[in-house]
Amino acid sequence: MSSAIVTPRTPKGVMELLPRQQIAFQRMLDTIRRGYERFGFLPVETPVFELSDVLLTKSGGETEKQVYFVQSTGNRQQSREPDMALRFDLTVPLARYVAEHERDLAFPFRRYQMQRVYRGERAQKGRYREFYQCDVDVIGKDTLPIGYDAEIPAVISRVFTDLNVGRFQINLSNRKVLQGLLAASGVSDADARMAVLREIDKLDKIGRAAVEANLTGEGIGLSADLARRIGEVVDMAGTNAEIVMALRGLNVDDPVFAAGVEELEAVTRGLAAFGVPEANARINLAIARGLDYYTGTVYETHLLDRPGFGSVCSGGRYEDLAGLYTKSRLPGVGISIGATRLFAALLDGGAVAADATMAHVFLCQLDPALQAEVFALAAELRDAGLNTEVQMEAAKMARQMKHADRLGVPFAVMMGPDEAAAGTVTVKDLRSGTQETVARDAVAARLLAALA
Amino acid sequence: MSSAIVTPRTPKGVMELLPRQQIAFQRMLDTIRRGYERFGFLPVETPVFELSDVLLTKSGGETEKQVYFVQSTGNRQQSREPDMALRFDLTVPLARYVAEHERDLAFPFRRYQMQRVYRGERAQKGRYREFYQCDVDVIGKDTLPIGYDAEIPAVISRVFTDLNVGRFQINLSNRKVLQGLLAASGVSDADARMAVLREIDKLDKIGRAAVEANLTGEGIGLSADLARRIGEVVDMAGTNAEIVMALRGLNVDDPVFAAGVEELEAVTRGLAAFGVPEANARINLAIARGLDYYTGTVYETHLLDRPGFGSVCSGGRYEDLAGLYTKSRLPGVGISIGATRLFAALLDGGAVAADATMAHVFLCQLDPALQAEVFALAAELRDAGLNTEVQMEAAKMARQMKHADRLGVPFAVMMGPDEAAAGTVTVKDLRSGTQETVARDAVAARLLAALA
Repeated sequence: MSSAIVTPRTPKGVMELLPRQQIAFQRMLDTIRRGYERFGFLPVETPVFELSDVLLTKSGGETEKQVYFVQSTGNRQQSREPDMALRFDLTVPLARYVAEHERDLAFPFRRYQMQRVYRGERAQKGRYREFYQCDVDVIGKDTLPIGYDAEIPAVISRVFTDLNVGRFQINLSNRKVLQGLLAASGVSDADARMAVLREIDKLDKIGRAAVEANLTGEGIGLSADLARRIGEVVDMAGTNAEIVMALRGLNVDDPVFAAGVEELEAVTRGLAAFGVPEANARINLAIARGLDYYTGTVYETHLLDRPGFGSVCSGGRYEDLAGLYTKSRLPGVGISIGATRLFAALLDGGAVAADATMAHVFLCQLDPALQAEVFALAAELRDAGLNTEVQMEAAKMARQMKHADRLGVPFAVMMGPDEAAAGTVTVKDLRSGTQETVARDAVAARLLAALA
Repeated sequence: MSSAIVTPRTPKGVMELLPRQQIAFQRMLDTIRRGYERFGFLPVETPVFELSDVLLTKSGGETEKQVYFVQSTGNRQQSREPDMALRFDLTVPLARYVAEHERDLAFPFRRYQMQRVYRGERAQKGRYREFYQCDVDVIGKDTLPIGYDAEIPAVISRVFTDLNVGRFQINLSNRKVLQGLLAASGVSDADARMAVLREIDKLDKIGRAAVEANLTGEGIGLSADLARRIGEVVDMAGTNAEIVMALRGLNVDDPVFAAGVEELEAVTRGLAAFGVPEANARINLAIARGLDYYTGTVYETHLLDRPGFGSVCSGGRYEDLAGLYTKSRLPGVGISIGATRLFAALLDGGAVAADATMAHVFLCQLDPALQAEVFALAAELRDAGLNTEVQMEAAKMARQMKHADRLGVPFAVMMGPDEAAAGTVTVKDLRSGTQETVARDAVAARLLAALA
């Protein structure tokens, strides 16, 4: 009598990959990591859960509605409230980490962190409840030079180039530009400013004329002149230097505006010095919205051939990372690659091989009497640096070849009694179908050369 | 008016590392991964949470008492029961994964998985509520050759050697040996057998004579002769071949016993063929306990110079992985490195460098007028493959050197006005304190050579 079968399935909203896709995903993460390390960022990992009172001290709102609480069986039995929750991003854990370990860290503290985060969002296409974020941030003590605002997109440009994602564009802006413009125009109310930013956010969809009309309409009620100036700013096109010059040409008399323009100029100059092609990182003043959290530079990154996936990498400058946890003032700048969404976009576009393979060599077994010799050859190939899967017992050749094919292994190596006696093996290239006889002593070198 | 500061802290029972320790931990994981891939295992990752009804279908008991339930805010507000829980190992998710994706996998399916698992254990030294497991398993369909039972310790021997953990020993046993001995002696009751195994488990602490006395004592009541034979078996010493021969010499007339001895022999022969030194993998029949779950070969791995840490890598053979999720019969064999505990042991013994570094080069900035040139040099060094941290604004040399020192960077590169004019830079070796002038064109090659 067998018990009932439980249908094997995952919760909704997660991305679980087959092994050959997982190889491709792992290679993507490795490339991101290598890029981050190339710029000298240090790794950090934090626990998947944080204490609720530590994680949820922010103003709350949307974030708290989406959090997953964690509770041990014992805790539940005592009907206590859950005292832990899953992280919903890597920024709050970074703030907690930096405040907790402040005395042990060297500032500016440059860290990367590549882990999964959790959001209890309604499940829908392209929205994940569990997804990877790959963050880089630089945290200063009291001050942080603007040069880091250029280094952050420089590392992303490098990583996206290494990932072969195709054409991409890091959109740069600085929140101070619009803030200064609004302040100079007498729009000082925070709600009014938010309403303006929300309208600007529609630029892509409804166009500049409609945005300007909305800005003068009921509810916001800007003057036609101011609406036109805003429309002009957010729609500015040209090279980075041209846009900086055009902003200066507006003659806005406001120190925040001036600071924003100066920072934008420093960032674009830094990017040029770092050798980042201008096509990869462009000023786009329409992305000024973002989280309230950001106070200066902001970034959004789009795959130009896959616009439907939205921004795959966003971030910006913040004035004080960890005010909730420490009295130290810790300004920072950072960015986060949404690696799960990025992978989905690349899979969709065929830019990652969904048929990646792990083993270089499949070692066949033809004769039970030669098992020990086959195992010894496997050890030799592995010692030489070849990823080697070995057939564990003699079986029909066709079955072994079918298995090797399914794994996508490029080479099969065979050693039958005649070959063992002659001190040779047969190497078959499974991609071309050709095969050759190779001295056993030379097989590792032969395969390494063929794979190089 | 500042609001109250929340004390930044993590939940109890987690291991959170400082960046330079994290580098060492990451290198440990990389080495494990490389070893697993060298043997052709394929990567799998599963979500951190599983549906409760999928995860908790087992007989339950201890495991269910330790599970962490996960609940979204919305779910809580509706006073529903939590429908998800954090994985407590990687074996149940593997069973679910293999059953769910059975048709898309090639069998024998050889996968590795390196992720964190969660157990709501009482916090105590050496017990973690969140810890890494690094599992390798081979899953067959209907049958699985015994050769895999040798490949599993072969990969662990390779990985532990590559990790430079010092002297280690993979203890091998086979549950069938003792089971067959007890069956042949008329001890057929499952509870009685468990009681015997529990006594054997004390061998290390109380010695053979006391174990034998307990086996004949009240509650178990074996005959003196049988107790002596059990004592003889679990205390057997010698080479693997000698132990196999001694087991044969016992002339136990039981098919299960005979199968156990035959499997042990096949495993040790396979290990020898794979070139695993016998010192690394030895038969130790006292480890026969383990989870009920295992049905044949079992493994436990100890660091011989750090016995206090217990087994850092355990596993074995199981007859049917996923009976709860599929009608297919899926026998398997696998092992799991407890990477968090292993790292704690290695840190404790000084076997990992807690002062690992990430950047190869710290690029100083002496003169604001040269900033663009410094940034360009940083880009060149990174393009050449050097992990490079760049000073973002000109500052006092002493302060820059102190920062580089704290990071543990081996080389600092300086370019002042004279050097820029001459087309040279100064390279300082921060370990020896020596410095030299190098042509700017040659600095990347010079540093790569010095680091090689």
